[in-house]
Amino acid sequence: MSKFWSDALNSLQPYVPGEQPKTSNIIKLNTNENPYPPSPKVIEALDHFPMEKLRLYPDPDGSVLKEALSHYFELPMDHVFVGNGSDEVLAHAFMAFFRQKKPLLMPAMTYSFYDVYCNLYNIEAEHIPLTDDFCIDLSQYHQDNGGIIFANPNAPTGIAVSLGEIEELLQRNTNTLVLVDEAYVDFGAESACSLIGKYSNLLVVQTLSKSRSLAGMRIGFALGHPDLIAGLERVKNSFNSYPLDMLALASATAAIEDTSYFAQTVQQIISDRNWTTEQLKSLGFEVLPSSTNFVFARHRTAAGDDLMTYLRHENILVRHFTKPGIENYLRISIGTREEMQTLITALEGYAHI
Amino acid sequence: MSKFWSDALNSLQPYVPGEQPKTSNIIKLNTNENPYPPSPKVIEALDHFPMEKLRLYPDPDGSVLKEALSHYFELPMDHVFVGNGSDEVLAHAFMAFFRQKKPLLMPAMTYSFYDVYCNLYNIEAEHIPLTDDFCIDLSQYHQDNGGIIFANPNAPTGIAVSLGEIEELLQRNTNTLVLVDEAYVDFGAESACSLIGKYSNLLVVQTLSKSRSLAGMRIGFALGHPDLIAGLERVKNSFNSYPLDMLALASATAAIEDTSYFAQTVQQIISDRNWTTEQLKSLGFEVLPSSTNFVFARHRTAAGDDLMTYLRHENILVRHFTKPGIENYLRISIGTREEMQTLITALEGYAHI
Repeated sequence: MSKFWSDALNSLQPYVPGEQPKTSNIIKLNTNENPYPPSPKVIEALDHFPMEKLRLYPDPDGSVLKEALSHYFELPMDHVFVGNGSDEVLAHAFMAFFRQKKPLLMPAMTYSFYDVYCNLYNIEAEHIPLTDDFCIDLSQYHQDNGGIIFANPNAPTGIAVSLGEIEELLQRNTNTLVLVDEAYVDFGAESACSLIGKYSNLLVVQTLSKSRSLAGMRIGFALGHPDLIAGLERVKNSFNSYPLDMLALASATAAIEDTSYFAQTVQQIISDRNWTTEQLKSLGFEVLPSSTNFVFARHRTAAGDDLMTYLRHENILVRHFTKPGIENYLRISIGTREEMQTLITALEGYAHI
Repeated sequence: MSKFWSDALNSLQPYVPGEQPKTSNIIKLNTNENPYPPSPKVIEALDHFPMEKLRLYPDPDGSVLKEALSHYFELPMDHVFVGNGSDEVLAHAFMAFFRQKKPLLMPAMTYSFYDVYCNLYNIEAEHIPLTDDFCIDLSQYHQDNGGIIFANPNAPTGIAVSLGEIEELLQRNTNTLVLVDEAYVDFGAESACSLIGKYSNLLVVQTLSKSRSLAGMRIGFALGHPDLIAGLERVKNSFNSYPLDMLALASATAAIEDTSYFAQTVQQIISDRNWTTEQLKSLGFEVLPSSTNFVFARHRTAAGDDLMTYLRHENILVRHFTKPGIENYLRISIGTREEMQTLITALEGYAHI
């Protein structure tokens, strides 16, 4: 803190991302990265990129990527917005749409960056409790509001709501924006994209960091009615004209176009998630039903922080949250089958199991 | 506009960047890009980057780049902040430091994004006129203020203030932040970096888009007292944990480290700027004294928009602003000597010259 800080800066509560260790002899199951490299088409696009062009500014509109997304999602180009990771896209959406007189509704347990954005942009939030079995119950989102946001599947629980539940919400809630954050949707939930043509207040946000193995390149996007996209463009053009660099655009475009590699790697992760779930259950863990590339699980007797510390000594990183109610849960990303086998073997060796 | 937009969104006035044409048979002198490719060391770093690593999140702190900048500027690492282009760095600085009760002081003619940020973050600005010969007179910045920002050299004029003038301002103005935007400083002005140890309210912002030929990769940085850097980190971590992707970090680090390529290309541009200035003068142009990689010039008789349109027909893009007082000026980026020769030949062919 310093006398040059604005008052608002003093009150910010920044997000704390998962650890990115600098050593490589570690099994990293703490930030939900994809265990597989980006598509060979991505590597090829980067290998063939004319690097001398980097002296020029990139296309401020990111048209090449918007075209690929437009084609993939069968939506016109004016329904697509792209940004420097889905966090930037979410931040712009909060600024564009959620600074309202009424509170923003969100789950009491969800991606913790939402509260950070509320704090950043001075947005009042109302937190709707999850059900006792950690589900989002959208029928509870009926209060007067300045917008609604939830992650589907939700994090850190991994549990999804159905498309029918989302459509019921949209039918009821017509006057404010509904933002569905689909960071993990490709691993087993139903995307709300199919409802975009019917509901002009629906904004869907996705990322290439998880199912497209491109966390290192920072690419996210939003899909919705052109009026919503125009609102996001307005914030973007008041903040940074060129959020996506040339290599991010090239790699993202190739990743979206390679649908078969995408399908194959996603399928492998789903299969290994199901295998891991069964193994954990047989070791005495309760595992929430996951539609993501991670599982959220607690052991019947062992404490969450003890397990995390033990695994760390075994060179396996998992994520642990101290929030009351989930303090005994671990969030474990799905790695390769070999990595998950190593995890299970390590847990078998834990004295209390 | 839409009923889902917040009131604040309706009142935004976005920045309009220079055109990025999609055809390649054009001489592009409109966005102050460097005519030379990035350093061979940059290309090498990208060629050797282990692309399979892109599945992982980048280092959220960008430490490798901070280290290179720390070494280059002989400042401790906690004096360095990095961001997704200097526009993002500037945006974060406006949010962190300039939301004050008193107005921000800035030149009446300068980088037009400053006014956009004021609008975005609801900051009152007071615009201090330039002198009759388009100079920033820092002795005029004596009002009570919530901060001071100026570009040095200034844009679109290209004119620099001296280090002595900046130090006098810092000696007088000790209670609020002074931000010096040095996007073009390497082309002939004195950097204020040398004053950072003495003045804890000085923040210097630079970019790799101009003198380091990396506009396509979006890298900017700020240098200042650790308290100021901590303030920027706080905003960044409330907005986007990972603003710089892995390839941006790798290319930027290599660019900063290759000091000899940097010196050689900058020297060539300065030499071609001086040549271009002489040629323009001999064609009847008034050319402001530039310390940048562009010149700001008007012809004695020909109108600015006519000249711009004529050059466009000749496949040469230059930038023209309609702002009263400079409506007859063209901002012309310095390309290669060959490109500048083509420009001069085209201007010789213009009927009115």
